[in-house]
Amino acid sequence: MHPTNDPSLRSFLEISSNSDFPIQNLPFGVFSKTAEDLHRIGVRIGDYVLDLHALSGEGWLSGEHIGNGDVFRRPVLNDFMALGKQAWEEARTIISELLREDNAKLRDDKAMREEVLLPIADVQMHLPASIGDYTDFYASKYHATNVGTMFRGPDNALQPNYLHLPVGYHGRASSVVVSGTDLHRPMGQTIAPDADSPAFGPCKLLDYELEVGVFVGTGNELGSPMTISRARDSIFGLVLMNDWSARDIQKWEYVPLGPFLSKNFGTSISPWIVSMTALEPFLVDGEAQDPEPLPYLKDNQPGGFNLHLEALVQTERMASPYRITQTNMKYLYWTIYQQLTHHAVTGCNLRPGDLFGTGTVSGPSKESRACLLELTWRGQEPLDLPSGESRKFLLDGDRLIIKGWGQANGYNIGFGEVIGTILPAVESQAKAFQHP
Amino acid sequence: MHPTNDPSLRSFLEISSNSDFPIQNLPFGVFSKTAEDLHRIGVRIGDYVLDLHALSGEGWLSGEHIGNGDVFRRPVLNDFMALGKQAWEEARTIISELLREDNAKLRDDKAMREEVLLPIADVQMHLPASIGDYTDFYASKYHATNVGTMFRGPDNALQPNYLHLPVGYHGRASSVVVSGTDLHRPMGQTIAPDADSPAFGPCKLLDYELEVGVFVGTGNELGSPMTISRARDSIFGLVLMNDWSARDIQKWEYVPLGPFLSKNFGTSISPWIVSMTALEPFLVDGEAQDPEPLPYLKDNQPGGFNLHLEALVQTERMASPYRITQTNMKYLYWTIYQQLTHHAVTGCNLRPGDLFGTGTVSGPSKESRACLLELTWRGQEPLDLPSGESRKFLLDGDRLIIKGWGQANGYNIGFGEVIGTILPAVESQAKAFQHP
Repeated sequence: MHPTNDPSLRSFLEISSNSDFPIQNLPFGVFSKTAEDLHRIGVRIGDYVLDLHALSGEGWLSGEHIGNGDVFRRPVLNDFMALGKQAWEEARTIISELLREDNAKLRDDKAMREEVLLPIADVQMHLPASIGDYTDFYASKYHATNVGTMFRGPDNALQPNYLHLPVGYHGRASSVVVSGTDLHRPMGQTIAPDADSPAFGPCKLLDYELEVGVFVGTGNELGSPMTISRARDSIFGLVLMNDWSARDIQKWEYVPLGPFLSKNFGTSISPWIVSMTALEPFLVDGEAQDPEPLPYLKDNQPGGFNLHLEALVQTERMASPYRITQTNMKYLYWTIYQQLTHHAVTGCNLRPGDLFGTGTVSGPSKESRACLLELTWRGQEPLDLPSGESRKFLLDGDRLIIKGWGQANGYNIGFGEVIGTILPAVESQAKAFQHP
Repeated sequence: MHPTNDPSLRSFLEISSNSDFPIQNLPFGVFSKTAEDLHRIGVRIGDYVLDLHALSGEGWLSGEHIGNGDVFRRPVLNDFMALGKQAWEEARTIISELLREDNAKLRDDKAMREEVLLPIADVQMHLPASIGDYTDFYASKYHATNVGTMFRGPDNALQPNYLHLPVGYHGRASSVVVSGTDLHRPMGQTIAPDADSPAFGPCKLLDYELEVGVFVGTGNELGSPMTISRARDSIFGLVLMNDWSARDIQKWEYVPLGPFLSKNFGTSISPWIVSMTALEPFLVDGEAQDPEPLPYLKDNQPGGFNLHLEALVQTERMASPYRITQTNMKYLYWTIYQQLTHHAVTGCNLRPGDLFGTGTVSGPSKESRACLLELTWRGQEPLDLPSGESRKFLLDGDRLIIKGWGQANGYNIGFGEVIGTILPAVESQAKAFQHP
């Protein structure tokens, strides 16, 4: 166990026992004091943000691997990510020490505390990194089987390659947004079941996909694949992800080159990147893999994560969100280490701050289905909501929330949440595009 | 006609009549004086590079739209691209004026000429922009028909969506490299026709794809699609592109989410971005579109480009390259303006420096097939080379060269070339991955 994961560790800050952000978590993110202000690197602790920009400016963040802490006075985490695992651990240890209840240094320095500890309610969160490339995998066999069954029947549900490699595709980095960014319903081409030709208009089958996002730390050079053990040291941390999906656009466009516009209008992530060290207590064996993976994908260490994940919806008529998915990251067939190793095996270079999604984390039970396509079985079984409404897919004004956490012995490690609301398609645009 | 395209314009520099880079071209790129030196923005003229970094440092580049020319003292073109079409035209006009034979300002200033005009042989070229996202289209109907015929037979060659939208998919930005970067043959999973399970090893069916690359200039905000006329003003310029493809990896991996590792080991582009103003003389009607595109994709202006494109191969035993493809950009079914408009129609944001490829620019004739998959019909009809060798796909040591130009009245506008050589798969890596 890493010493910073000691369940007896306590912070001098008051933190509720079910907080996502005890001293054992210490996730990294980027915030600003006002919308226009400088973007600053911070660490979340309870209901506070520890301002690493200010802390390193005061000379409190330095060490063998993080140097003089300059990397914390940047608007994004990429340079810190590039320093590698020893630097990440060093920073974590220094920050953990500073926040301990038995360390007077910051605890009893009122002026410093006021400078570097900001109430979370007073700050605005931003994307934690400049995301060079974004990739999306398809790593839950339950999800792939459900989707395959709907489209090709149960006998041909999984494609022949599925059990041999982590299927993935390149996504759009420019439209990855931080939690709280609302998105307009996309316009696009769709074709009605009985139509000869497509029509243009607002997406009618708008869906969420509950995923986990993985931030690459150190990466690799072009032409130099990484072994799975190197992949293990290369991951900086995890976030929650909502891979919004326009199912009707997807169905029409995706053959033969894969999803394109059906995904690129927005992908939402939670703002705090939880480190792999904080997540160590939740490492478990992943799903059994049969057939045995090819040697380059074989891993002798556990690669699953016992992390509870849930999705909630709140329509405009509902006073509070209603949970529609309860699943767990351990249901992924391919581990994040296998995903990363596979991604780089051709020599494709991954860079600090690159992001990949695991794919929809559906589990074996009905309640663990992690998108509406599966939950409502393509709209055939609408979901009843406590407001008396029902949903096949998301309507304008619907808010979708994803949460996730692990329960360790004595504390939780959580991600907070990723929230987004569907705004109506912009009608003026819709008109301009229909009648140019 | 734009005044800088006047066929009677001449530079005081001696430029051969068949040069790709007369004063009517003036493409932008990024170079350095040595491999380690500062990356500088430059313009190609004949066999020289005009150093815009130095020129703007001396105060010779300023204007209403380009301001004091600060954007030319950056290591990439992105900030200049972001300024928009008026700034691009202003810079072009200023540079054209400076290089005219009837303008003494630079012509007779020997010290300045020696500072800002560098022989092309003395510089090293780099990627012209920081590429945020890279997308690849599939816009030649001839290519899609050939590939579809090989895999599904002539009756089902084109998918139902093909004539209604420009099919595309997101690619990998990190592995876009500049001409002259050699690439190792990728390792990956492939499956033999009669095998039950895949094997891991070097790609056996390595191919090139002759494409045109399109650099986005101004782009759009997330949630704000662009009309086709705005798309027309948003494109900064074109390059040549080789979308290297591992056909055996592609075949096994690509269902259902599209090409992934089969493309992300490298995509090569030519270093000089030729502006849309320089390419104006080559605008022609594109291929006839039937059925008529949906209104948002309809364009009343010509969107094709009469640009000759060719691919050449040079094996280790050949003294000079041998031409294997002769095609023309006008054969694309979907124009670059339709591609860009479609890309943004969901509200997907494109940023200055984003790149998209047109897809393989195959034409109607056999000699215009623009990849080996088509030329050798999946290896069934090997290509005979003048060295007595033959090729189904690329072997180690093979060099692939793509060239392209347009012939205007009195001058050529060319792209130069994009070159890359296939290096062997790294055997030590291959072993490490097979026997971990």
